[in-house]
Amino acid sequence: MVTTSPASAPHEAPTRRPASSGGAATNSRAKGASSPGAFVASSPAPTVDVALLGEYLLGTWAEARLEARRVTARPEMQRIEGQTLAEHRQRVLEQLHLLVGEGAVNKAFPTRLGGQDDHGGNIAGFEELVTADPSLQIKSGVQWGLFGAAVLHLGTEYHHNTFLPGIMSLAVPGAFAMTETGHGSDVASIGTTATYDPETQEFVLNTPFRGAWKDYLGNAALHGIAAVVFAQLITQGVNHGVHALYVPLRDSEGAFLAGIGGEDDGLKGGLNGIDNGRLHFDDVRIPRANLLNRYGDVSAEGVYTSSIASPGRRFFTMLGTLVQGRVSLDGASTAAAKIALNIAITYGCQRRQFIAGSDTNEEVLLDYQKHQSRLLPLLATTYAASFAHEVLLTKFDEVFSGKHDTDVDRQDLETLAAALKPLSTWHALDTLQEAREACGGAGFLAENRLTGLRADLDVYATFEGDNHVLLQLVAKRLLTDFNRKFAKADAGVMARYVVEQAADRAVNGTGLRRLAQNVSDRGSVARSVGQLQSSKVQRSLLTDRVETMVAEIATRLRPAAKSSKKKAADLFNSNQNAMIEAARAHAELLQWEAFTDALAGIDDAPTKAVLTWLRDLFGLGLIQKHAAWYLIHGRLSPKRALAIEAYIDRLTQRLRPHALDLVDAFGYGPEHVRAPIASGAEAVRQSEAREYYRALRESGAAPVDEKALSKTKASTN
Amino acid sequence: MVTTSPASAPHEAPTRRPASSGGAATNSRAKGASSPGAFVASSPAPTVDVALLGEYLLGTWAEARLEARRVTARPEMQRIEGQTLAEHRQRVLEQLHLLVGEGAVNKAFPTRLGGQDDHGGNIAGFEELVTADPSLQIKSGVQWGLFGAAVLHLGTEYHHNTFLPGIMSLAVPGAFAMTETGHGSDVASIGTTATYDPETQEFVLNTPFRGAWKDYLGNAALHGIAAVVFAQLITQGVNHGVHALYVPLRDSEGAFLAGIGGEDDGLKGGLNGIDNGRLHFDDVRIPRANLLNRYGDVSAEGVYTSSIASPGRRFFTMLGTLVQGRVSLDGASTAAAKIALNIAITYGCQRRQFIAGSDTNEEVLLDYQKHQSRLLPLLATTYAASFAHEVLLTKFDEVFSGKHDTDVDRQDLETLAAALKPLSTWHALDTLQEAREACGGAGFLAENRLTGLRADLDVYATFEGDNHVLLQLVAKRLLTDFNRKFAKADAGVMARYVVEQAADRAVNGTGLRRLAQNVSDRGSVARSVGQLQSSKVQRSLLTDRVETMVAEIATRLRPAAKSSKKKAADLFNSNQNAMIEAARAHAELLQWEAFTDALAGIDDAPTKAVLTWLRDLFGLGLIQKHAAWYLIHGRLSPKRALAIEAYIDRLTQRLRPHALDLVDAFGYGPEHVRAPIASGAEAVRQSEAREYYRALRESGAAPVDEKALSKTKASTN
Repeated sequence: MVTTSPASAPHEAPTRRPASSGGAATNSRAKGASSPGAFVASSPAPTVDVALLGEYLLGTWAEARLEARRVTARPEMQRIEGQTLAEHRQRVLEQLHLLVGEGAVNKAFPTRLGGQDDHGGNIAGFEELVTADPSLQIKSGVQWGLFGAAVLHLGTEYHHNTFLPGIMSLAVPGAFAMTETGHGSDVASIGTTATYDPETQEFVLNTPFRGAWKDYLGNAALHGIAAVVFAQLITQGVNHGVHALYVPLRDSEGAFLAGIGGEDDGLKGGLNGIDNGRLHFDDVRIPRANLLNRYGDVSAEGVYTSSIASPGRRFFTMLGTLVQGRVSLDGASTAAAKIALNIAITYGCQRRQFIAGSDTNEEVLLDYQKHQSRLLPLLATTYAASFAHEVLLTKFDEVFSGKHDTDVDRQDLETLAAALKPLSTWHALDTLQEAREACGGAGFLAENRLTGLRADLDVYATFEGDNHVLLQLVAKRLLTDFNRKFAKADAGVMARYVVEQAADRAVNGTGLRRLAQNVSDRGSVARSVGQLQSSKVQRSLLTDRVETMVAEIATRLRPAAKSSKKKAADLFNSNQNAMIEAARAHAELLQWEAFTDALAGIDDAPTKAVLTWLRDLFGLGLIQKHAAWYLIHGRLSPKRALAIEAYIDRLTQRLRPHALDLVDAFGYGPEHVRAPIASGAEAVRQSEAREYYRALRESGAAPVDEKALSKTKASTN
Repeated sequence: MVTTSPASAPHEAPTRRPASSGGAATNSRAKGASSPGAFVASSPAPTVDVALLGEYLLGTWAEARLEARRVTARPEMQRIEGQTLAEHRQRVLEQLHLLVGEGAVNKAFPTRLGGQDDHGGNIAGFEELVTADPSLQIKSGVQWGLFGAAVLHLGTEYHHNTFLPGIMSLAVPGAFAMTETGHGSDVASIGTTATYDPETQEFVLNTPFRGAWKDYLGNAALHGIAAVVFAQLITQGVNHGVHALYVPLRDSEGAFLAGIGGEDDGLKGGLNGIDNGRLHFDDVRIPRANLLNRYGDVSAEGVYTSSIASPGRRFFTMLGTLVQGRVSLDGASTAAAKIALNIAITYGCQRRQFIAGSDTNEEVLLDYQKHQSRLLPLLATTYAASFAHEVLLTKFDEVFSGKHDTDVDRQDLETLAAALKPLSTWHALDTLQEAREACGGAGFLAENRLTGLRADLDVYATFEGDNHVLLQLVAKRLLTDFNRKFAKADAGVMARYVVEQAADRAVNGTGLRRLAQNVSDRGSVARSVGQLQSSKVQRSLLTDRVETMVAEIATRLRPAAKSSKKKAADLFNSNQNAMIEAARAHAELLQWEAFTDALAGIDDAPTKAVLTWLRDLFGLGLIQKHAAWYLIHGRLSPKRALAIEAYIDRLTQRLRPHALDLVDAFGYGPEHVRAPIASGAEAVRQSEAREYYRALRESGAAPVDEKALSKTKASTN
């Protein structure tokens, strides 16, 4: 199917051709139609098969994504900018009911209750809601991904049968009451208590002080009529740690039940379609059966039992069931970045800054070097994040479907999610902001969506696990794996390990890929620019950095084992920056590996060529970003570092003509993008202006330019 | 005056002690009361004289700032979060009338019209409005800084007498109609025409095509009853380029006058207290006298005259009068960064993440290494930006007061503004975002202001000159200065210049400081960490980078002079990234110089010591940020680069105990900060929680921890 723009030349108003619309697309725009500008290599460029790449990007759960995109294309599912808090909250609640009507919310639930036991597909579809309205995505997440998932994963058959039907049908909107005002990331320290009373066989919920109020809970301010409440479970004088209980909140009139109070969190920086609020409990009694007792139970007499002996492991197991929040934020953030780049790159291919009436300097914005280097590396990172998300989602599905569900699998999944979610959520914010600025004043108008999406996604960086806290978890895992490997080595061996860069060393553990291709002579790494295109060399450089950083930190932390608690904490603290940086490097490597693995699955040679440039831009961009580290550690020579810089410029120019195809392949149509500046209107305006000046010149009525006049005078004088 | 917190221990809820409240403040909190945490040097630390530093920061126009802060402290001047578009616009309009009532808007206008001819004081006061509501700042800027200033600076006595009184009293709210939908930064290419008709002695205004609609204009959607319109002035068949005209827009009922049309820009990403809109003109006739004719006039017969022969110079002279917009954005952004840091650092000194009921691990957030390294470098940059702004404002006042008002002075002012505005506006966004994330979920609540300020300031990066376009202007100036110096040198000399790093080379021009302290032996630069504290060494490294980059670019651009227009444009484009980076380096150097100069003015030795650490953190932070460049160019050894990294960590720890004093010195009281999380409420909550656990332990009724129980069992078994 060939689509051309009827209104103007194809390079001015390229018709959006979403890959999702299917059919065998041609790629005529890629070769030269998209205004190649000044610096495009003159050799015949390969063309991207947009339809093929689009299908590839949809991944394993393509059908779930396409189905969700059909739902998000419905106008009534979409955000109306400028609604009041009350209107927006009401609209999103209604959208949740529409989702129920679409049968879009049951995928993850058990087949026997009308679900589909399709965990990957559920998350894939859920992520796509972000393009309609992030509030819709997150409020759905609260209802089915947190509140419902807690009942599903922490409860047992009684809870499933009793509570899930109402949750699935939205008859019972509910809150997920974990976070407290005084404790965000530190869930183990929450203050709320659930004390068992054997006389009445009830749990008594209490909020002992203001800092223990539940806070920031979606559905708590208005719509929630029940909640899963996390509290310290106390029975027979023993605190068994954090457990979850199903707690009714409001009566049929919407009034709080006895002993329950709360507050509206009010206006937020974004996501105002969600009624976040606070809750507190004063001797609230709930039946013993309401304890979600999969991992810990209390008998009628008050005897506590658990299938997991260690309180620490039990806690992490319970929390681990909530990893899907992080998984879906990773995917939703990447979807938002795709929308942002669709808008900015489309506009950058239409908007001109030219001297009125003249034919020179007619480049569109994206023909400027700086504009390219602002947007195209973000495009490369978005592809990396997209492929990495597919890896994460696959892992998630394997664990939650039970296909591969060992303790190690679960730990690996958690580490992978903790590594990728920070990078993709920050990347979405960076991309939305750069896209906003790249569109100038037009980018600041709410109708063009960039500011609204950025405002909504802002909190993705700190909820479902603060990004820095998550990276620290990743670092701890890397250190644990490292120390396990070197458990028997003494300090001397470790120091030598760091210094010698021995070829066979490798940090194991799932997250971190084994470096099979370690280059024994480090001096020869990156011998030429040509070498830099080699996956092997890029992998070697990226892996080496992670390994070396982890080994260095481990060496510095060694004395902690024999120190006082205080000294150990201090030592740990003085390595916090390095740990977080190592975790980030690890996560970047994971994205790079996912991108590189994805290349192998592309059969179309020209598409593969372009994608390989894009991967190189991503990989070399990482090496350039960390060039100081590579130079300091002798992994790159100064000359080579300069070569990388120059090569990145060349890659950017080479990718420029493919930029539109690469955003087209994301598969979002105008019904998902919905930004007037990305609609082709700008190209129409540009054409009209040029036509006006052309006609004026031809009419002979054009005023003479004073500058031209001065020159004429000067030359005749 | 010693203030202590009555509610809790002083290190938990430090009472805000704004420097502006005057009096001889003590500094007891600085030494140890602000919870020094784990990594504070144990040697007796100097203390900051907050009152003295506060007065110093207020600068030359201290009185104007304090006066403005008294105004912004009035609740009716302040933003109410969550207002609708209509409510917010109405409120800000009323606030403008309140400003008139306060006599706060006339400073920059002529004394004979009731003004004060106080240009520096006017901008200083105007900038402070940002803390009340950025919409108030910008709408005031539209009315008096753009609309009014255009009449003042581009008009002559007739216009001053006829139009300024109504503008000053706000009887005539007006728009500044320069930008068009099709042309933002490229003002010379606007499409609107003003064609002189000698028969009626009128100008006829026309909008020839959709792209030439005036756009994004404050006061255009609703309140503007007149505008200064920029148009191509055409008379006797000649286009004399862009000129400004005073044009009535609406009648007394608020309806557009004949031939004028427009649209509301609608909801924006921020600044929604301003009614931005679009305007277009269809044969709109205005009297000849309405041409603001200071730099160009048309006689009754239609003969054009100008005191400036060159059309190009005339254009830049007219636009140059508008530099105050950039100056004030630089100051306002820095003020917003100060508010953000006040909030995040105050909260970071109160918020704890501790194990409930235990006494270990009680650090407040700011005792964590990562938290310090997230916030304290931003604090250092804010100080640098604040001192640099004072330099800019002084230069501005000298030019606009006529004290030093040569062409060179004006060019220097414009270059300085173009260099600093991009850095400070981006810095404000970065700081607001980091502060938001550092405050977690609480930072996302609108009541804590960080998200709202960020949304409002977003557009500061692209209006009044897109940041990248401004940096490119700076780069061109640097190259012009460089080429002027080397006009007679051939390419060989220039190449040698670059390669040899001769000690006497220096890029002149006002922007770029002469490098008086060039170190002849580059190999010896930064011989030790001690040396890195030397201003001379920091200056040498920072200056060297700017000079080398400019020289390299100039060398690469040399062939352009002899190339075709197209080839020259291509060459220019292929150096665009490098040019923008050189301009940024230059602007960073200007900030560093301003900070360093400011140190000399501080007499109190302990205060000076702390400020010097802060300056070192800023300067070495820049060098670390660009470490790859220094390593590649052989200016730093790998070992030295590592030493800088380690030293920055030490500086950060050393500054930690002074963080609160350093934000106190900004002089903003609770009435300006207005964020509940920075009010001390968090510290009160923390105390309450700890008191609860203490009492519980003492009561003997505390439940036993299962973990402790397991350990006991294990040890008794």
